[in-house]
Amino acid sequence: MKPKIGVILSGCGVFDGAEIHESVLTLLFIDRCGAIPVCMAPDIEFEVVNHLNQTGTSEKRNVLIESARIARGDISNIKDINAEDIDALILPGGFGAAKNLSNFAVKGADAAIQPDVERLIKEMIREQKPVGAICIAPATLAKAAADLKPEVTIGEDSATAANIEKTGAVHVKCGVDTIHVDEKNRIVTTPAYMLGPGIKEVSVGIEKLVEKIVSMIR
Amino acid sequence: MKPKIGVILSGCGVFDGAEIHESVLTLLFIDRCGAIPVCMAPDIEFEVVNHLNQTGTSEKRNVLIESARIARGDISNIKDINAEDIDALILPGGFGAAKNLSNFAVKGADAAIQPDVERLIKEMIREQKPVGAICIAPATLAKAAADLKPEVTIGEDSATAANIEKTGAVHVKCGVDTIHVDEKNRIVTTPAYMLGPGIKEVSVGIEKLVEKIVSMIR
Repeated sequence: MKPKIGVILSGCGVFDGAEIHESVLTLLFIDRCGAIPVCMAPDIEFEVVNHLNQTGTSEKRNVLIESARIARGDISNIKDINAEDIDALILPGGFGAAKNLSNFAVKGADAAIQPDVERLIKEMIREQKPVGAICIAPATLAKAAADLKPEVTIGEDSATAANIEKTGAVHVKCGVDTIHVDEKNRIVTTPAYMLGPGIKEVSVGIEKLVEKIVSMIR
Repeated sequence: MKPKIGVILSGCGVFDGAEIHESVLTLLFIDRCGAIPVCMAPDIEFEVVNHLNQTGTSEKRNVLIESARIARGDISNIKDINAEDIDALILPGGFGAAKNLSNFAVKGADAAIQPDVERLIKEMIREQKPVGAICIAPATLAKAAADLKPEVTIGEDSATAANIEKTGAVHVKCGVDTIHVDEKNRIVTTPAYMLGPGIKEVSVGIEKLVEKIVSMIR
């Protein structure tokens, strides 16, 4: 039986959704590890950012429908997924991970997590199944798991790191080509495009994160 | 001086734009080869396909603006790019490569190519700079370069292969983990998701294609 790795997508595009490179690299390394990705996203609206000129618009799109672009249509509504359906969970980054999966980008340590995202993260942690988060996604994960005082990375953005520590979590500095493993809570994080500089470097940290997550599955 | 590889995107999503996995893998392997990707797309409208249920919609979006999602905003209007700006050119697949960069998906061998796409392909071939195409994109490339009777791959879709041969091009069978090199015309193609089955297999052919294209730069 191949292990199943849940992947929570938050749209399709770095400025208003899931970071596309990080999401695709996550899917690539899951497949290379002999595991099966289970893509999912919440069925909620978001405000579109024009990625050509990076300005906001009044247009709304749906996180689940746009995430389906990255998943080539093979995606579930996160409300239909429980911890028993998957062996591990990974959250790629992109602003959607802090604007659609939670409102951390606006509210910081006072953020609310999208209810099904919070439920699934808490179920996974309760069952001691490994959870990974990439780029800005550790902020949402830290808030959802704040009771456990998880150790997470965010790169070198001191304002975001301070907001993460306000939740009760511990921020750990980490390079783009490496990962931090919170052994106690079975949480693995890497900074990816919070540091950059490019897809080659980002791919190194994400490959290590996916390999570690798969190795932690019991 | 790092070589510059043009990448023509055709939107953002397999069913109405550039295939996202193929596009991101192309960018990854260009970076790993020590080259610089130069993303570009035409400033034209396309009809949106809902990727969750794979049905057409009446919504229109812009190819350049949506392609900017894959390029993280770092993208040019193809009308502003000439062959002297780049050392090689690659067209990832996705239905956009045969619906937005040309109308091959509708018109087959009688397809019209988007004027700037046709101009740039012809300039590259005239200057003997290598051109690569992935998945369904070889259909558009074959039509644009039909005078040269180029050899291209499409996988095993016999209807598409027959339409490609009607343009005067030569269809060559090829596995997902390999490439075909038309040495005379300096054209490299690979079937990718025309064959699948998954991102791991597709990445093998695309890595070989990018490495070959970079090795052919003079």
